[in-house]
Amino acid sequence: MSVTAPRGFRAAGVAAGLKSGGATDVALVVNDGPDAGVAGVFTTNRVRAAPVRWTQQVVRGGVVRAVVLNSGGANACTGPAGFQDTHATAEHTAAALTASSPRLRLGAGDVAVCSTGLIGERLPMDKLLPGVRTAIRALARDGGPAAAEAIMTTDTVPKTTVSRGTGWSVGGMAKGAGMLAPGMATMLCVLTTDAVAGPELLDAALRAATRVTFDRVDSDGCMSTNDTVLLLSSGASGVEPDEAELTAAVTAACHDLAQQLVADAEGATKQVAIEVVGAADEDDAVEVGRSVARNNLVKTALFGNDPNWGRILAAVGTTAAAFDPDAVDVAVNGIWVCRGGAAAEDRSKVDLTGRDVTIRIDLHAGAAAATIWTNDLSHAYVHENSAYST
Amino acid sequence: MSVTAPRGFRAAGVAAGLKSGGATDVALVVNDGPDAGVAGVFTTNRVRAAPVRWTQQVVRGGVVRAVVLNSGGANACTGPAGFQDTHATAEHTAAALTASSPRLRLGAGDVAVCSTGLIGERLPMDKLLPGVRTAIRALARDGGPAAAEAIMTTDTVPKTTVSRGTGWSVGGMAKGAGMLAPGMATMLCVLTTDAVAGPELLDAALRAATRVTFDRVDSDGCMSTNDTVLLLSSGASGVEPDEAELTAAVTAACHDLAQQLVADAEGATKQVAIEVVGAADEDDAVEVGRSVARNNLVKTALFGNDPNWGRILAAVGTTAAAFDPDAVDVAVNGIWVCRGGAAAEDRSKVDLTGRDVTIRIDLHAGAAAATIWTNDLSHAYVHENSAYST
Repeated sequence: MSVTAPRGFRAAGVAAGLKSGGATDVALVVNDGPDAGVAGVFTTNRVRAAPVRWTQQVVRGGVVRAVVLNSGGANACTGPAGFQDTHATAEHTAAALTASSPRLRLGAGDVAVCSTGLIGERLPMDKLLPGVRTAIRALARDGGPAAAEAIMTTDTVPKTTVSRGTGWSVGGMAKGAGMLAPGMATMLCVLTTDAVAGPELLDAALRAATRVTFDRVDSDGCMSTNDTVLLLSSGASGVEPDEAELTAAVTAACHDLAQQLVADAEGATKQVAIEVVGAADEDDAVEVGRSVARNNLVKTALFGNDPNWGRILAAVGTTAAAFDPDAVDVAVNGIWVCRGGAAAEDRSKVDLTGRDVTIRIDLHAGAAAATIWTNDLSHAYVHENSAYST
Repeated sequence: MSVTAPRGFRAAGVAAGLKSGGATDVALVVNDGPDAGVAGVFTTNRVRAAPVRWTQQVVRGGVVRAVVLNSGGANACTGPAGFQDTHATAEHTAAALTASSPRLRLGAGDVAVCSTGLIGERLPMDKLLPGVRTAIRALARDGGPAAAEAIMTTDTVPKTTVSRGTGWSVGGMAKGAGMLAPGMATMLCVLTTDAVAGPELLDAALRAATRVTFDRVDSDGCMSTNDTVLLLSSGASGVEPDEAELTAAVTAACHDLAQQLVADAEGATKQVAIEVVGAADEDDAVEVGRSVARNNLVKTALFGNDPNWGRILAAVGTTAAAFDPDAVDVAVNGIWVCRGGAAAEDRSKVDLTGRDVTIRIDLHAGAAAATIWTNDLSHAYVHENSAYST
């Protein structure tokens, strides 16, 4: 049920002609309240798309009544004119929503905007704005799945989730199949809840959740200009969870969506969990996991079903984490091919024929642990990304 | 003429059976003096192969009379037994050289050792040590090209160079086609000179040269466990160049070899120069160039002849360099496709059909510049590296 699983939300996904071929490309999520709480986390890339800069401002106020999202164009690296396009989209959405239902009384500052697609090109506003009006007419209590479909780019399947509290729930949708790397490993994600929760509580829950989910997906090491994760609260359930309860439900939703992103990553033939244990602290564990996740020689070896632990150790060695190179153990799918920094069990025992791969690295330097999720580097990844914009 | 171009050196390359198929795999370079100066730079990977750890100790003394190199096995991640193998190789080489020519009187500490090949497996010492004896018998004043051939792994061509001073010269050989990344972008390189130059002068010249050559090649972002660059001086010319002269000749030799490495990088279809200008300082320029060089989405776009400058900007945005995202210009093969962080000249004007590509990034933040050399990410890279160890 996506973002419309919790009470108080309507959504829609329609075709505005931004994508060729008639696929849906404009999504709208409206929070009917009674509350309109919001929190957001955004890309840490210093080259931020116009909608990111706009939505960061909007979210700062703690109130958002609608989110308009488009695929078919990222509106990144488009200069002042691109920012103006985002602003116009928010204004137009606010005015049209108010006209459709005067009790809403929205201004541009109540509308978050998200865009995804090719970087460096202006959006065709003559198509986008009519699309927004079409989306408003299509808004429905069960419109969540349609919205999830409209934000897809190279995704092969829509990604939605629901996680339930006691008397309230969290719903969500996400898109992202490339440029998946930290500082948020998705392009766009909208989460909704009918819990009663103000902006501060939403922010605490969202940051705690993304830190251990989206931020630990590193599919291709490339950080997007458009990453946005929003969490909206309607308060429609009347139930006020505590921070731990809300964090648990939001984390479950983010974890589910993050796994769906890794599962659908461009061209991937493997879904890889890199479990780093025995680290001196969590930052070390994350650094080591990320270094292995980003190593093209490790990734191509996995594509070739090759348990090449020497490449894994070489990647670990590039980090500043605390460890003794002569004390590191590495297991691939449960076989400890490396003990004490040297060959151990026979690598031929490792079965890499399945899609799921687990690499476990024990640094023997402490008690901290972290898992990073990644993919292999395949012919299909090269093919898809060498042909994307042309 | 490789490492035997300068006077005072002999070399050989022979087949010891470390590689399947009978290709040569053991190289030996002997410095007949009168001097025996040495300097070295090594991988900064914390997981260092046994020969790197050995040779770092040897070089510290400032004297090396012979370098023995093998392909067919990296002797990395092989534990104390692997280090023992390196030590035994040095001892055996020293003893056999002394036996062959008693005036040499070598100890193990006079012999540098370099290895390259698969990580994580012990070397077959029963083949390597007889191979060393064969190499000693094959030593010749014109043996440089044979030595250069014997250190190849996935290289398709041997890499050699000569640069000349007044009355003296620098010769060199290198191997490396993958795991090409900073903290030295080669696996193995031996440079020789018949100039009169002590260890301190050699060290200053070598560090200055590698900093702007090998350290600026970043073909695949993967740092090796075995990188070693050695510079040996025989003094046989009797000419004593000053630091500037020696640095210029060594830099020319390193630059030539570095370009040969990029030209022969695994599976590459493009040879890419990323020229970063207008940087606040050189470190910023290098950081930006490296970030673009390592971005898989930029690299796959280049493979697809796609001047996708948005991906270039997204890569620049992940750095901590000083720049204003709205002031960055990007040219691809001379066409300024991005000005002020937004689209400028028509991308269709960019001709990417040739092998050489130049990406110029003007940060408009200062007067410093640096060039990083890299390659595209191709189907052949994925193929070659998914099948290497199996």
